[in-house]
Amino acid sequence: MTRDRVLRVHAHVSPKANLADQFTEAKLRAALAPLAQRLALSHGGTQESLEAALADAEVLFLTGSAPLHDLARRAPHLRWISYTSAGVEGLLKLDIPAHVTITNASGTHAPKAAEFALAAVLMLNNAIPHLVTAQRAHRWSPRAGGTVAGKTVLILGMGALGGAAARALKAQGMRVIGNSRSGRAHPDVDVMTAGGDFRRHLPEADFLIIALPLTPETHGLVGRAELDALPRHAGVVNIGRGEQLDEGALAAKLHEGSLSGAVLDALTQEPLPADSPLWDTPNLIITAHCGVYDPTAYGTRCMAAFAANIQRYLDDAALEQVVQRDRGY
Amino acid sequence: MTRDRVLRVHAHVSPKANLADQFTEAKLRAALAPLAQRLALSHGGTQESLEAALADAEVLFLTGSAPLHDLARRAPHLRWISYTSAGVEGLLKLDIPAHVTITNASGTHAPKAAEFALAAVLMLNNAIPHLVTAQRAHRWSPRAGGTVAGKTVLILGMGALGGAAARALKAQGMRVIGNSRSGRAHPDVDVMTAGGDFRRHLPEADFLIIALPLTPETHGLVGRAELDALPRHAGVVNIGRGEQLDEGALAAKLHEGSLSGAVLDALTQEPLPADSPLWDTPNLIITAHCGVYDPTAYGTRCMAAFAANIQRYLDDAALEQVVQRDRGY
Repeated sequence: MTRDRVLRVHAHVSPKANLADQFTEAKLRAALAPLAQRLALSHGGTQESLEAALADAEVLFLTGSAPLHDLARRAPHLRWISYTSAGVEGLLKLDIPAHVTITNASGTHAPKAAEFALAAVLMLNNAIPHLVTAQRAHRWSPRAGGTVAGKTVLILGMGALGGAAARALKAQGMRVIGNSRSGRAHPDVDVMTAGGDFRRHLPEADFLIIALPLTPETHGLVGRAELDALPRHAGVVNIGRGEQLDEGALAAKLHEGSLSGAVLDALTQEPLPADSPLWDTPNLIITAHCGVYDPTAYGTRCMAAFAANIQRYLDDAALEQVVQRDRGY
Repeated sequence: MTRDRVLRVHAHVSPKANLADQFTEAKLRAALAPLAQRLALSHGGTQESLEAALADAEVLFLTGSAPLHDLARRAPHLRWISYTSAGVEGLLKLDIPAHVTITNASGTHAPKAAEFALAAVLMLNNAIPHLVTAQRAHRWSPRAGGTVAGKTVLILGMGALGGAAARALKAQGMRVIGNSRSGRAHPDVDVMTAGGDFRRHLPEADFLIIALPLTPETHGLVGRAELDALPRHAGVVNIGRGEQLDEGALAAKLHEGSLSGAVLDALTQEPLPADSPLWDTPNLIITAHCGVYDPTAYGTRCMAAFAANIQRYLDDAALEQVVQRDRGY
């Protein structure tokens, strides 16, 4: 790449995407203003504007979903897709050509995710799911307990979300057991486990947090057997993906009282249909997949990360937040 | 007091008291074992055992309520009542003779209170009252927001509970405005206010926490006018006493949507009757006065503090946790 050339960048922001209004043309141009002279930037949300831009775009900034099949033919110059979500499982199904680098928004949610994980664990520790269930029935049913200090949390997934959660919970004096594919040590984790080894530690867990990317390996990872291995007083939090947890098994255990509570931010079906029995499951709080979003800062953080990555791209430096397709995240 | 005399101590543990099982004779004798040779300890829960013990007891360890009228006549040797609750407003109505020192359990709740205050603020910041209300109606209604860092919490009462809450919230990067009778500086508070001056700061408060003792001055302190001065997005937490907050005004504002949510641990009527309209107030979570109790550690902490205070008493040193009757706490 020469220093003088102008990089052709197209931003496709699906008008249906949750956070579309965070990535308007004006906001994106403002975020990329320091690089304006190096870029030829276009912005659109229609299939037509996308099709036209793919003909010469080298970089695609993508918010929401888009028809990205057959890119080798339709987008001969495309080298990089910068995606404004963390979960890329949908994108990876589209057979994006191997020479196109995919970056995502991994880590953008981290500060909010840490706060939400802390909130969820403190809610479980303070019996809020029980109290809210009792409140529906107009029942005064106090259930006091100790503080979280010294209790054990098992976190599945030590990426940006899980790592941030570990830090926040460690700061409350908790014992943190982590889990990742590699089992690599983490500064805020007392005991690291690799792959399926987390199962040995389920009986020690006062709280289980799922903070995994969705891959074939994590699909259905926490089923009835894993939930049965937790102590009866344990609580479960899902800030990963709904498909990683057997929601039916969880609901059955909450009905039985063989788990004390759960906070589900991620669900298999989103939005959850009005007739789902999950809504009325005792000791379950459903947080509508907004727990780890920080709309006040999300777009700003994403666009700042994109600007920094463009600078690296122009400098032939390694990009950050690169998706490893073989891992799926 | 001579070093050799034996101190006559009676423990009256009302069998109706919430935490009576934390203060059994065996547990109390174990906690006081290092002092056993200096004490003549009796323990009971009946009116008869109390009456008999008052005749010669110098120290009364008290859990729950008891008929303590006319003590000057009934308990001529009594010099100290060690009460295992923090709120002494009921005890002070009994005209305990002025020469009897009253100590309470102020501070015993502090670690749990700090955690509960943090949980409540994080719940409000993460729209949990809204999400739980939507869940009742089977409505998927995400409401995302930023982290608490940089937001402002106004804490009324800087005693053991309020001070511990300030520390926990400051640690999350919040701006803390405190309030006490004196307005004395506090290490975890950015801006201290004295007495009624807190009202000037209500418009800045993203969260209001009531953590006051119940006194004539704090009765009815937070009414419609104070709630109206808060921003519409603000949330309210009461870990003080129900009588300090106009619950009707709060409920009206939650119905109107002119406050975003509330977490009430303390209520005017406890247990809240099943027909109270508060149960169904939108965006309100009722936590049945268990939020600041830590039953796993409460009794242990109380009895350890009592043992330390007995040592001070025997040494003619100043007692800790002494109630100042003119303040009411």
